[in-house]
Amino acid sequence: MTTPDLSRLSLNQITTENYSLKETVDACVAEGIGWVAVWRHKIEPAAAAAALIRDAGLRVSSLCRGGFFPASTASERRLRVVDNLRAIDEAAALGAELLVLVCGPAPDRDLDAARSMVAEGVGEIVDHAQQCGIRLGIEALHPMYAAERSVVVTLNQANDLAAQFDAAHVGVVVDVYHVWWDPQVYIEIARAGPRIFGFHVSDWLVPTTSLLMSRGKMGQGVIEIRRLRHAVEEAGYHGPIEVEIFNEELWRTPLREAVQQVRRSYLESVEG
Amino acid sequence: MTTPDLSRLSLNQITTENYSLKETVDACVAEGIGWVAVWRHKIEPAAAAAALIRDAGLRVSSLCRGGFFPASTASERRLRVVDNLRAIDEAAALGAELLVLVCGPAPDRDLDAARSMVAEGVGEIVDHAQQCGIRLGIEALHPMYAAERSVVVTLNQANDLAAQFDAAHVGVVVDVYHVWWDPQVYIEIARAGPRIFGFHVSDWLVPTTSLLMSRGKMGQGVIEIRRLRHAVEEAGYHGPIEVEIFNEELWRTPLREAVQQVRRSYLESVEG
Repeated sequence: MTTPDLSRLSLNQITTENYSLKETVDACVAEGIGWVAVWRHKIEPAAAAAALIRDAGLRVSSLCRGGFFPASTASERRLRVVDNLRAIDEAAALGAELLVLVCGPAPDRDLDAARSMVAEGVGEIVDHAQQCGIRLGIEALHPMYAAERSVVVTLNQANDLAAQFDAAHVGVVVDVYHVWWDPQVYIEIARAGPRIFGFHVSDWLVPTTSLLMSRGKMGQGVIEIRRLRHAVEEAGYHGPIEVEIFNEELWRTPLREAVQQVRRSYLESVEG
Repeated sequence: MTTPDLSRLSLNQITTENYSLKETVDACVAEGIGWVAVWRHKIEPAAAAAALIRDAGLRVSSLCRGGFFPASTASERRLRVVDNLRAIDEAAALGAELLVLVCGPAPDRDLDAARSMVAEGVGEIVDHAQQCGIRLGIEALHPMYAAERSVVVTLNQANDLAAQFDAAHVGVVVDVYHVWWDPQVYIEIARAGPRIFGFHVSDWLVPTTSLLMSRGKMGQGVIEIRRLRHAVEEAGYHGPIEVEIFNEELWRTPLREAVQQVRRSYLESVEG
């Protein structure tokens, strides 16, 4: 019997949204999970969160999330940039190395303009990120989030955007839930190569009843998760694999049991 | 005061799903709408439906829907092909000229295999369609339907598929709800050119609460409908514009009022 390899598993904190950072960290330690991805709304203040995670012996795979660049006025866009600069500082305080960017929707119907604002926004924060040793990972979101969360909806687009910046500092995050449907996904994963800064897993359930809260545990749905994992590895990514599951039922599950379910579905349907 | 131009407006019957074909046709006549798109589950038998529509002086913009080609066994795929041949016969009986193809999901996790099955399926029915004078319109569905309705999820993919066949017989249907988010949509509309066989409108609401039943009336949401309409016209499409709205609330609205709402939103947010 081989020992289960949990070395790359990272628990994204949204998966256990109803618990505090301390509770989630403790559950990770108890289940042998060495990475955690944290959300900004759960880490006030960042220094205390950093100490808590470090003292538990965990590492931070990413901070979620920066982005949300488009806005209808220049002053509002400036505020968004300032908030991103703060997010970079928080990532640095946490020792996160990676800030995930969810780029934001259009303030009106104009997708082209909003997409330009995203490129401008990334341009405004990249120097500070570099100075702080934080990499920026542009996450293409599923097109069903185009109106409310991100005008960046394909890996092709995320790659094009990242390509405008230094490959050491701006890359992409590949989340199987967001990209699995895309006929170009394997081409774009190969193209991203060393720009792949993160890899997120969950599953697409059939039926899917909610746009936001219906993600499945790995193996419960239709996504070819292992094929996608092998593709990102082929492209050169061997970092942590974040389990990021927005699911009403999982959120209601007692913490320890929820983390055990995550661990099991990771070992059965992602690892190996 | 100019007369409102309803000459291209077609009411897709799913918009008034709770009413019979006769009721919908009568409401179209009363509101000056000259086209109707019909669904197969509402036209039994096709000959009677054809007579009813013709006698009312309406024309049929399309029959919805053929497709659903992928299946796990060859015999099941054969049954799907036979059903599509029957759909072509029904379209011919209705004088529809266009059969809309919703290509179907993968029977398992293998999208590549399912996409091949779609191409094979279209290949199996194209000769019969040609003999019957029916054009086949491949409709790319929004990626949120990839798991349950269609492995064809981008206009790029629909164009690639159509390009394997004669341009006179196999083309694409552009539905704004399905393609609005796509960074490549204007490129692919231009590429489709004379292969655009149909154009569908509705709107993407914010928030969108249901994957299936949350479409808005034109003007209620965030889609740049007129820009897309101008793009398909620039590409050469000047045929009927189908209003196809899956919406729980609209379905509950009394028929005549629902059709008046459709007419108004068409004139305000699509026409002109």
